[in-house]
Amino acid sequence: MISEKILDLNKNGSAIRAMFEEGKKMAALYGAENVYDYSLGNPSVEPPREIKDAFMQILEEESQNYVHGYMLNAGYEDVREAIADKLNKSFGTAFSAKNIMMTVGAAGGLNVAFKTLLNPGDEVITFAPFFGEYRNYVANFDGKLVIAQTNPETFQPDLQVLESVITPKTKAMIINNPNNPTGVVYSEETICEIAELLEKKEKEYGISIYLIADEPYRELAYDGVEVPYLTKYYHNTIVGYSYSKSLSLPGERIGYLVLPDELDDAHEIIPGAAVANRVLGFVNAPSLIQRVVGRCQDATVDVEIYNRNRELLYSRLTEYGYSCIKPQGAFYLFVKAPGGDDKAFARAAKEHRILLVAGSGFGGPGYVRIAYCVDYDMIVRSLPGFQALAEEYGLTK
Amino acid sequence: MISEKILDLNKNGSAIRAMFEEGKKMAALYGAENVYDYSLGNPSVEPPREIKDAFMQILEEESQNYVHGYMLNAGYEDVREAIADKLNKSFGTAFSAKNIMMTVGAAGGLNVAFKTLLNPGDEVITFAPFFGEYRNYVANFDGKLVIAQTNPETFQPDLQVLESVITPKTKAMIINNPNNPTGVVYSEETICEIAELLEKKEKEYGISIYLIADEPYRELAYDGVEVPYLTKYYHNTIVGYSYSKSLSLPGERIGYLVLPDELDDAHEIIPGAAVANRVLGFVNAPSLIQRVVGRCQDATVDVEIYNRNRELLYSRLTEYGYSCIKPQGAFYLFVKAPGGDDKAFARAAKEHRILLVAGSGFGGPGYVRIAYCVDYDMIVRSLPGFQALAEEYGLTK
Repeated sequence: MISEKILDLNKNGSAIRAMFEEGKKMAALYGAENVYDYSLGNPSVEPPREIKDAFMQILEEESQNYVHGYMLNAGYEDVREAIADKLNKSFGTAFSAKNIMMTVGAAGGLNVAFKTLLNPGDEVITFAPFFGEYRNYVANFDGKLVIAQTNPETFQPDLQVLESVITPKTKAMIINNPNNPTGVVYSEETICEIAELLEKKEKEYGISIYLIADEPYRELAYDGVEVPYLTKYYHNTIVGYSYSKSLSLPGERIGYLVLPDELDDAHEIIPGAAVANRVLGFVNAPSLIQRVVGRCQDATVDVEIYNRNRELLYSRLTEYGYSCIKPQGAFYLFVKAPGGDDKAFARAAKEHRILLVAGSGFGGPGYVRIAYCVDYDMIVRSLPGFQALAEEYGLTK
Repeated sequence: MISEKILDLNKNGSAIRAMFEEGKKMAALYGAENVYDYSLGNPSVEPPREIKDAFMQILEEESQNYVHGYMLNAGYEDVREAIADKLNKSFGTAFSAKNIMMTVGAAGGLNVAFKTLLNPGDEVITFAPFFGEYRNYVANFDGKLVIAQTNPETFQPDLQVLESVITPKTKAMIINNPNNPTGVVYSEETICEIAELLEKKEKEYGISIYLIADEPYRELAYDGVEVPYLTKYYHNTIVGYSYSKSLSLPGERIGYLVLPDELDDAHEIIPGAAVANRVLGFVNAPSLIQRVVGRCQDATVDVEIYNRNRELLYSRLTEYGYSCIKPQGAFYLFVKAPGGDDKAFARAAKEHRILLVAGSGFGGPGYVRIAYCVDYDMIVRSLPGFQALAEEYGLTK
């Protein structure tokens, strides 16, 4: 028999990916313009022009063996230096190249972090709702994902709940800010309270609790909201970053980990993460795209495009009677499923060729996730479907 | 405490990578031209011109969101189709896109294969000497690497030894052909004998034994030698391929798995491998380079350059009195360490600024590996050092 874990995952696959594959089939059947695919966080905004220019320049200027060759498992040193400099300028930190490790996206980075930190049975806390893959990443290393429910009205952390789930087996906690799937942003005040609690518990139990800041959505924040940089608030913070969303490069699998000198056991964690990157089979983050992002540290996608989507969808859906927190970050709306059954509602939406993901996969049953990183026109075309659905479910305006 | 496995790996790191990092330091100290770095399998031959052209064309012709975006976890369908077509043309196989899964290099592919196949305690057989990372890849999934010694004179498989290590717990066997680190190639006759033995044992124990053909060196074969394509000889074969060596793209992390319909449990393995790719954090093989290799299926590096290195180094080292099998594939010489202690000899070579890797890390103590994927001129400059070492050790010519 093949891996039992994989047999189990085959049965209970990713709801996001299943919907994405479904969308491709439906697009072939009904025409792409008649399917409203809100399933996947696949950026609709073009990568900034600097990306293409950097590709071209590097391919012309640098040696082919260099740009496509092996480098240290942690990545090219000049690229890591450029990233450290940019972080230091942006957040007043004091990182150098050795604190940056290039990774195969944030998903690769999180797996490297867990491989480096976890022993079997160690507990990793996440707030719910959460990105469902955390469960798999932690399970890869025989850790246990522990869920801390957030305030059901605001999706903001509840410190008492958090305190109640910290145990002597707690090895790490993930904070995804801005949050996927809710789009909420945790404020500086909230982060300070969490940091204080973790420090207290570290002392109480005589343990190290690593805070893993999963930040692919850092730059996607609206209404002028600030997203705190967690290494400044808590000594044992590891940042996992990705350029997937901020530069619209999700297929390229490029990101990095920040491993500060202040970490407990930094002298083991920093080399250990490079070893983990190697033995997990990543070996190193893809080479040419490392060099591209190294040159594009000041590039940004036009967040206003997502903001326009957010405003349209939020205003219309609430107008139709749907209930939803207005997100301040990322590109997701987490909407209360009319009728209360998220899977049933996702199926009903599919009848209108609207593809949503049921919240159950995010530890948020009773909600659906709408990824609005799509063309504005697709949103416009989908609105009659949302309205019809609202009527079917008898939502009051 | 952080992961005990990682603490252990920190202590007993990769001898190859340690030497590679050492080489970088020595190059800074003595000047790159005065350090003879034979440590790493980092191709010295330029990628074929088609690669750069394909990059440029794709960046100009295709949508940026498409070439840098998410696709199915298994990879772009047109790329997988192009690879299947090329394999079918080359080897008379009958694969289609669904049998090909794009991976983050062969290292990523092997990890995906083991994640898909292994339950804790399952045994994976390899011939020794072997690529040392196999040990880590199998350990990632709590499997047990079982070593079958080869004939010490030829490094060719010994079928009796192989038979003696197959047990009811055997889940897989890796064949690395051409072999790293010895450079030997297993003939069609040998492969037939192995296939027959595996089939016999599958029946005897009522189990499936998956043969994993690790083939990054397939195209690097000399003297007109044929490297058999294993799916044609054994029904339960999974091929792990990489473009790292064949197109000189090791940093880009691009390869694929071949998952034939004939595999036992193919209906679970094929989707399961895509799931494994996702949950291990690869998500998908990097996107742009997938599209590049898809267009470059007929491109090749100039193997004659490696052949010239092989001839020079083999003829001179044997002339100086070193003892070595003449390799027919890959770009490694596996040389008997004068004095018998491979680590001591590697240290002695370092005194001449020659960087070799001790064979112990490959399950081949008493030998050193010389990676001759280097500039011809570097080989020429290093020869006096090899000669002086031979004299120090009193080798007779």
